[in-house]
Amino acid sequence: MSSEYPFIKACWGQPVDCVPVWLMRQAGRYLQCYKDVRAKGGGTFLDLCKDPARAAEVSIQPVDILKVDAAIMFSDILTPIEPMGMALDFVPGPVFANPVRTAGDVDALVVPEDMAQAVPYIPEILQRLRAAFAGRVPLIGFGGAPFTLACYMVEGKGSKDFAALKKMMYGDFALYDALMQKITAMDCRYLNMQIDSGAQAIQIFDTWGGLLAPHDFERYILPYAKKLMDGLKRQGIPVIYFVKGGGTMLDLVKQAGADVVGLDWHISLGKARDILGDKVAVQGNLDPTVLYAPKAYIEKEVQRILDENAGRDGLIFNLGHGILPDVPPENAIHMVECVHRLGRK
Amino acid sequence: MSSEYPFIKACWGQPVDCVPVWLMRQAGRYLQCYKDVRAKGGGTFLDLCKDPARAAEVSIQPVDILKVDAAIMFSDILTPIEPMGMALDFVPGPVFANPVRTAGDVDALVVPEDMAQAVPYIPEILQRLRAAFAGRVPLIGFGGAPFTLACYMVEGKGSKDFAALKKMMYGDFALYDALMQKITAMDCRYLNMQIDSGAQAIQIFDTWGGLLAPHDFERYILPYAKKLMDGLKRQGIPVIYFVKGGGTMLDLVKQAGADVVGLDWHISLGKARDILGDKVAVQGNLDPTVLYAPKAYIEKEVQRILDENAGRDGLIFNLGHGILPDVPPENAIHMVECVHRLGRK
Repeated sequence: MSSEYPFIKACWGQPVDCVPVWLMRQAGRYLQCYKDVRAKGGGTFLDLCKDPARAAEVSIQPVDILKVDAAIMFSDILTPIEPMGMALDFVPGPVFANPVRTAGDVDALVVPEDMAQAVPYIPEILQRLRAAFAGRVPLIGFGGAPFTLACYMVEGKGSKDFAALKKMMYGDFALYDALMQKITAMDCRYLNMQIDSGAQAIQIFDTWGGLLAPHDFERYILPYAKKLMDGLKRQGIPVIYFVKGGGTMLDLVKQAGADVVGLDWHISLGKARDILGDKVAVQGNLDPTVLYAPKAYIEKEVQRILDENAGRDGLIFNLGHGILPDVPPENAIHMVECVHRLGRK
Repeated sequence: MSSEYPFIKACWGQPVDCVPVWLMRQAGRYLQCYKDVRAKGGGTFLDLCKDPARAAEVSIQPVDILKVDAAIMFSDILTPIEPMGMALDFVPGPVFANPVRTAGDVDALVVPEDMAQAVPYIPEILQRLRAAFAGRVPLIGFGGAPFTLACYMVEGKGSKDFAALKKMMYGDFALYDALMQKITAMDCRYLNMQIDSGAQAIQIFDTWGGLLAPHDFERYILPYAKKLMDGLKRQGIPVIYFVKGGGTMLDLVKQAGADVVGLDWHISLGKARDILGDKVAVQGNLDPTVLYAPKAYIEKEVQRILDENAGRDGLIFNLGHGILPDVPPENAIHMVECVHRLGRK
């Protein structure tokens, strides 16, 4: 039963014997075996995302190596944007050759009826993973939040300020809204397809949500995030909403209606839980650079976060952002071991 | 009298007829006349910093053009690191050829006795500016906070994570502390020299302070920031402490003891003032990208921030970070005009 996994129980705020833990970006470059699989197939990062056998293989590696309590499908938040009609490349950061700037560009965007057909490798990865895990760990599906997807689609690439999107937001709200409605509709179908394909929880990444001031978050992000969550088939499937930089506006982040709020490391977990109240679980929030530290230091930091939680239910231990590519794997293994040892009731 | 400037009165939390305003990085690339002066002299960005005539000229430009209520010396936070024995270059971001990594590197760092001799162009710029303004606007001096300076000195350049510094912090606290003590001692002399040379207020930039979790801010930043502020000749000279990303830990930022806390745009001004209490003035906090917006939008945003302040004394209007290099100057002029019109008592 999916509902018996500690990770899933913690998402629902139910008591668990031991705090569950996984790591954002746990399938990745810090593992030599990931790099081997990546090299084995040749091709690009995007080729790896589209190769169900290899994508499943790298999703399984951290579960075996780190002994984490949940798996996450290996993919990129931008893969579903390709079938909307945008040519995607990684150089190594993501680049769209034809960024969305005009009403014509927004009109031209496709919202595929059948996302399983649009990105057929995604359901295949999920099905392979469910079969491989056979109930061992729950499987997390994920997508980008509409705002974060819009950042890349309008800017055409990563950016410090995402000025092109900001100009659209401030200068032509109707155009911004039309774009966001299309992205939200796509995202909803995409994530529901993941649920239909076997995802047992969904994480929504709003990596750039913290770029906006709180009142702008309320106007330009929250309505679409809410609409997305309202449109998901959430029966039995917990939803995690992670807004990087959301610590100064958790009251607003909470309003999106997720079951779990992901926390970066810029706010103390205790303070965050006080703001969020006891109806919402939390996930976080170790500074990813702490995995550079000596093992004894890592253990102290794990203990500190557990102390801040003060025994409350509804905690999923994680990093406050993705694991860094040059972290020694033994430090990540140690962190997971510390959570399992120190987080036992 | 310095104490009669609206900017200075607001720093002390005293009533003013109209909310004062200036812009971080107001001397800069968004102004064609800045680019002209930069080009006129030939040479590098660092050459401009070291040329008192041209540095003074670009410091004056925004006062004339924007009609702001304060001037800030044109310089870079890293210029005083050169006489510590580190070769500095801008390519265009700052680069130190010999980053500080070992005990030997820290031992080799010089803390100049006489900062006026070590960076002779700095007192000359300040004296030229005081003479040029002749009481028209107050003159702000500035420096980097010890932590932010350490970020660059240890990493050797800008970075997303400043992993080299984090590794030193976590792995060898004694070395980190030795480095920070030296930087703090230099910084204190450097800023006191600016006060002696005519600076009428001091802003301390902790651009990377928000990289740390709150409990790490408390351990790795706050003691040195406090020591720096305690060592400044503060009689009649207000001190502003700006921690970018400090919104989730303003209670700690306040403990550094500045007269004014600078706010980025990630926290609502009203909430920040509630946390900080009425003994501390604030400076901020318009999202710099709002200067890309249509003029009517800019006006509404100025009004919103003034509304959040709710008539409290001790507000200096500013951006939440430096002005962006491609902002239309007329939008910056308009913003200042809006503050002066809408911020009148």
